[in-house]
Amino acid sequence: MALVDRLLLGPGPSNAYPEATSALAAPLLGHLDPEFLRILDETCDRLRTVWGTDNARTLPLSGTGSIGMEAGFANFVQPGSVAVIAVNGLFGERMVDVAGRYGAEVVRVDHDWGQPVDVARVLAAHGSPDLVAAVHAETSTGARSDIGALARAVHERDSNALVLADCVTSLAGIEVAADEWGIDIGYSGTQKCVGVAPGLAPFTVSERAWQRRVPNPPTWYLDLGMIGDYVTGADGGGRTYHHTAPVAMIASLHAALGRIVEEGLPEVYARHAAAGARLQEGLTELGLELFAEEGYRLPELTTVWVPDGVSSAEVRGVLLDDYGIEIGAGVGKFASTVWRIGLMGHNARLDRVELILAALRRVLGR
Amino acid sequence: MALVDRLLLGPGPSNAYPEATSALAAPLLGHLDPEFLRILDETCDRLRTVWGTDNARTLPLSGTGSIGMEAGFANFVQPGSVAVIAVNGLFGERMVDVAGRYGAEVVRVDHDWGQPVDVARVLAAHGSPDLVAAVHAETSTGARSDIGALARAVHERDSNALVLADCVTSLAGIEVAADEWGIDIGYSGTQKCVGVAPGLAPFTVSERAWQRRVPNPPTWYLDLGMIGDYVTGADGGGRTYHHTAPVAMIASLHAALGRIVEEGLPEVYARHAAAGARLQEGLTELGLELFAEEGYRLPELTTVWVPDGVSSAEVRGVLLDDYGIEIGAGVGKFASTVWRIGLMGHNARLDRVELILAALRRVLGR
Repeated sequence: MALVDRLLLGPGPSNAYPEATSALAAPLLGHLDPEFLRILDETCDRLRTVWGTDNARTLPLSGTGSIGMEAGFANFVQPGSVAVIAVNGLFGERMVDVAGRYGAEVVRVDHDWGQPVDVARVLAAHGSPDLVAAVHAETSTGARSDIGALARAVHERDSNALVLADCVTSLAGIEVAADEWGIDIGYSGTQKCVGVAPGLAPFTVSERAWQRRVPNPPTWYLDLGMIGDYVTGADGGGRTYHHTAPVAMIASLHAALGRIVEEGLPEVYARHAAAGARLQEGLTELGLELFAEEGYRLPELTTVWVPDGVSSAEVRGVLLDDYGIEIGAGVGKFASTVWRIGLMGHNARLDRVELILAALRRVLGR
Repeated sequence: MALVDRLLLGPGPSNAYPEATSALAAPLLGHLDPEFLRILDETCDRLRTVWGTDNARTLPLSGTGSIGMEAGFANFVQPGSVAVIAVNGLFGERMVDVAGRYGAEVVRVDHDWGQPVDVARVLAAHGSPDLVAAVHAETSTGARSDIGALARAVHERDSNALVLADCVTSLAGIEVAADEWGIDIGYSGTQKCVGVAPGLAPFTVSERAWQRRVPNPPTWYLDLGMIGDYVTGADGGGRTYHHTAPVAMIASLHAALGRIVEEGLPEVYARHAAAGARLQEGLTELGLELFAEEGYRLPELTTVWVPDGVSSAEVRGVLLDDYGIEIGAGVGKFASTVWRIGLMGHNARLDRVELILAALRRVLGR
């Protein structure tokens, strides 16, 4: 057993909601037990609430957030599909890799890291794509993009294109309104604002996307038709076994979502907004410079330049070893020049903010 | 929170070892935290012990047991590969589906359900396959096959063929000796004899198979090259982030394996053997007939015919509702005519056996 107890203020995993941790250790149920199926149904209902959707096909996939990305492409592109992908950070970059593996002709629209997605440029990239994909909250840069504006623009121009949104770091932290915005395919992870350990990927598919899914995708484990037959039941039929559901993780997700719904989504968003605003104000007071473009900064994940002459790794090491606080390094060419500080789920609280600000002030000698 | 507390004597999930449950609820660590990486390294070491291997590439994959099967085919077959697959139950059948999706030319060797794999027939099916696959412990039938004999025969005839073994229901319940037997690719699940909740797939790859893996498989999430660079480190290099490891599940697996290694593998196997033998003896004393071929019956999973005139579902319902005991239905054409009773991991104990025998005696009125 680990003898350490960390405050996880990196880009995720974050510390889980206490209810989620307790549920992980509750007695296990079989994956076909009526009581477990009730929990699974209720989990899907609660996911519909946080996704802002009525989609029947809203469910947790049995893997970490990245499996959501893989399922999104594996089931909706095939050789011959045209996928326009906005790249403004690592996860847009990853989408390009994944879409290509499933045979899509990828049209990438590159942005500087830290910038939001430029809707007009994405729209101009191709006249009739099968799918347009973008990241809502870029975990690598801390930038928020306007998925609602993107989806509206895509759908207004071309009723055939599906819109795929990566909501790994946004779901249950900032507003996601899948139906209102017009997201056809959305995925997330549990270890960020959802407040659960990593291991599940909340996923939602609109009815029109469901009808257009690839019938026999190359992947068996992520064949949404087969998964849907177990998790939500076949169209007009009963449930069919696919793979053994990760019952403990699903019970944990059920509990965290129960807490989130009880607190209320507007209250949860306000808590994230207040914590993030105070952190960004406090970092500026310390004389640090924020990385992501002003006006597009995520409250749940703040990126900040490492000050000149300071070793990123050394500061992170002291925070971890002496204070038990984890913050994240940057990614790619910003690996040693940017820090990423998360305030997600249970950690989106003012006490966490003042603690990390005080620790940073002390360690940086400011 | 569920108000029910089940004894899980079905085909899995089984009740976890208590140490595994406690570890699930321990403070979360970041997936790049040095303390977590120490736990991950130790988990891989312990997996090497239960797999009976020195393979450097021995690690937990981030999904349920079925993801092990998918990774096994996705990384080792491609269009043009010839895969001979022994089918003696549902999971051999599933292998055929998965291998086909990744483009393999599949040569299936069908057996009656409940029978072990016939080595001579598998060998005769094709003269120079790229891969030969079989299930060690068929969860759908309760039959054990001699993977050691199969692997030896394959390697003696043809040094090029890789041997893939499904050890989902065997690992840490009956002996698996990957190196001695000549298993090139092996996968398992955590929710059976390993004694952890479902959600991880212990996986091992021999050096020669590793060198022959598909360089850019269609799947990103299960690209073993990229996963290996994070979990075990690149060849001669450091770790590279791939996806966020399911840290709580890995801590739980670490704890269960710690207990198994402390008890001792011979002792663990003896405990499963004794429990299974007594269950099979007791069922016979009740006048029930065992399903799997004599001499090839798994101690950890016993299949038994539902007596004439008895409703399988009704008996399972009474056991679940009145006794809190789950046993499994059969699969496929045996769905309502066979029961599956598991004694796996922490449940491979004589008290569990006497309890299910007593409950069955009462419910069946014998």
